[in-house]
Amino acid sequence: MTGTRGAYRKTAQRREQILDAAFTLFAKNGYTASSVNEIARMVGISQTGVLHHFAGGKLALLTAVLQQRDALAEENLRGKTGRDFLATLVEISRIQATQRGVVQLYRNLSTEAVDPEHPAHEYFRDRLSRIADAVTQAFTEVLEQDGLTPGTEPREASLSTLAMTEGLEALWLQGMDVDMAEGIRLFINGYLTRAL
Amino acid sequence: MTGTRGAYRKTAQRREQILDAAFTLFAKNGYTASSVNEIARMVGISQTGVLHHFAGGKLALLTAVLQQRDALAEENLRGKTGRDFLATLVEISRIQATQRGVVQLYRNLSTEAVDPEHPAHEYFRDRLSRIADAVTQAFTEVLEQDGLTPGTEPREASLSTLAMTEGLEALWLQGMDVDMAEGIRLFINGYLTRAL
Repeated sequence: MTGTRGAYRKTAQRREQILDAAFTLFAKNGYTASSVNEIARMVGISQTGVLHHFAGGKLALLTAVLQQRDALAEENLRGKTGRDFLATLVEISRIQATQRGVVQLYRNLSTEAVDPEHPAHEYFRDRLSRIADAVTQAFTEVLEQDGLTPGTEPREASLSTLAMTEGLEALWLQGMDVDMAEGIRLFINGYLTRAL
Repeated sequence: MTGTRGAYRKTAQRREQILDAAFTLFAKNGYTASSVNEIARMVGISQTGVLHHFAGGKLALLTAVLQQRDALAEENLRGKTGRDFLATLVEISRIQATQRGVVQLYRNLSTEAVDPEHPAHEYFRDRLSRIADAVTQAFTEVLEQDGLTPGTEPREASLSTLAMTEGLEALWLQGMDVDMAEGIRLFINGYLTRAL
């Protein structure tokens, strides 16, 4: 009686194992230098075994890994506006300081994806412009509540905040002694009449 | 009579061609995903031909490419102190906006090199800490001339300036509409009593 349900659970588990391995390998070596074969070896199954779960091969694995991670971050931000949204960016950064692999994955893949021929090029381009728009929107909401320092322009504040976030992540990944979340909080505070 | 000199010139030219190809390929695909074979193909010679000029293979090519580029940037900064040093950082960034490949090379390689097993790991770690020290030194010199805004701490200003630089480069490479040099100039100005 448990046959079907057990098999389903086993399939879900195996999928999870494959995604974890793909995540680890992409974070370490990027997409181009990773292979389905190596992912299969990490899980202890055959390449055919991986393709049974992800028929689209390496690209399908990449897409699944990215969607899984982005869904987590977007869930944190859902429904937040203005100062709450900005404070959540700081919180996300605080969490990321405990998830070195995630930060490395995004840096590695977004770097490769600069190449217009990279399969994730559009994914990353759209993702970045979506984030920039959302942060601009949050700064605009704070502006409407007279919460921005004089002369602060929401779009500019958004792009600068994203640059500072990317930059602090880069220094942190490279082993410099920086506190990402604290750095972003102080940077955003420079635009606010009342500190976060 | 021109034999030896002609042969020498030809060798130097070939070395240059190989380095240019290595630069292009590393900038596009990073180090791990590049091969000596592909570099040879780009130049139109055999793999043995490349190894004749760079006996150390791919790693020797990487080292040569990085040293060539870093030497150029260091030449610009040599002998500069305080505000002059900071103004030169802005100038370097202005030049880099015309050298997309160089920016891409550093982002790509420094990203891979986060991995402690990467052959350029120590090179990039040492490079970043050398730059951080030099920028701290410049801010300290400005401080000694009472040129920093109250509360500015040179080490902190240095790391933040590097983060902003890395971040603006990342956004720019990913196609966002940012002016790297102008962004860095304005950011540094936030620390100075007199604008650059």
